[in-house]
Amino acid sequence: MPELPKILKAKTIARTRLFHVESLQMKFSNGVERDYERLKAGKNGAVMIIPMPDPNTILLIREYAAGVERYELAFPKGLIETGETPIEAANREMKEEVGFGAKKLHFLKKLSLAPGYFSHMMSLVVATDLYKERLEGDEPEELEVISWDIDKLHELVERDDFTESRSIAALYLLQNYLASSSSTPISEID
Amino acid sequence: MPELPKILKAKTIARTRLFHVESLQMKFSNGVERDYERLKAGKNGAVMIIPMPDPNTILLIREYAAGVERYELAFPKGLIETGETPIEAANREMKEEVGFGAKKLHFLKKLSLAPGYFSHMMSLVVATDLYKERLEGDEPEELEVISWDIDKLHELVERDDFTESRSIAALYLLQNYLASSSSTPISEID
Repeated sequence: MPELPKILKAKTIARTRLFHVESLQMKFSNGVERDYERLKAGKNGAVMIIPMPDPNTILLIREYAAGVERYELAFPKGLIETGETPIEAANREMKEEVGFGAKKLHFLKKLSLAPGYFSHMMSLVVATDLYKERLEGDEPEELEVISWDIDKLHELVERDDFTESRSIAALYLLQNYLASSSSTPISEID
Repeated sequence: MPELPKILKAKTIARTRLFHVESLQMKFSNGVERDYERLKAGKNGAVMIIPMPDPNTILLIREYAAGVERYELAFPKGLIETGETPIEAANREMKEEVGFGAKKLHFLKKLSLAPGYFSHMMSLVVATDLYKERLEGDEPEELEVISWDIDKLHELVERDDFTESRSIAALYLLQNYLASSSSTPISEID
């Protein structure tokens, strides 16, 4: 493993409501200096949730994605608020976006987005033992909630409106988790 | 599927060497208006490559990731240059980052990053029938190339320095691809 490069200088070069761009002057252990730019995330991080109303079903939301200008299917997600744990944030976001809370929430992995350029990290959580509870979200229109059979994940992945890397990564991690916990009923794991 | 919202107004609000932030004034089909911000990607898109020197091995690179300030393992990737197809860009990036070209390059899927906020799309490509060829890249230090046994992907995913959503998504899509093409030797598919 190489020695970490040194950050000689870090400076905010643009800041908007959502985005904070920093320039970095880096020096690598071989002496090479290089200027970088990166996006700084808010300090609390984010969560993505895989809601499972039963052991064979996942819930997705259909939401307008302004970056690519189309409706996309993805797992519910959101920013962690100050004072919340990732698990608490997962439960709140699920109540806001899909209308369910969960009695069991299991942390799977921390995912990065594009770690060369963004500091953003997202905790991936599987939610089981769901119960109905709706919290008011801040979406401009009602989100459509879609049930998907986990035996048909290959059909989901082939869709042109299911492209988000984090949601596809979540499928992989869910499959590993279900395989490793297959000897125990999923609803008893937390 | 809801009617697409209208973009009433789009305006560049920050631009640095790497990042272009746009503000959008959106109107949803229910009449609600909302301001958005998004990052605009360069128009050519990007590629990520899964190099397979043999049917049981993938190649990863270890590279410093300035966003998260550590070395990360990930698949090689890069921007598509003007005039290149995604397949051509994949082969060039592989020669620059891992020192191999490929006789067979198979497109798997277009991945988005965070489609709500970024317009970035990346073509995922599997490369087989590799041959040695090194092109000069623009990295500040030599990239370490790591061979990984595809029977040990679960160990890779458990690592704290393998977090990139796109690389984990790539594993899922690779597994599907290998399963669906398992009746044909991988080196004969293109």
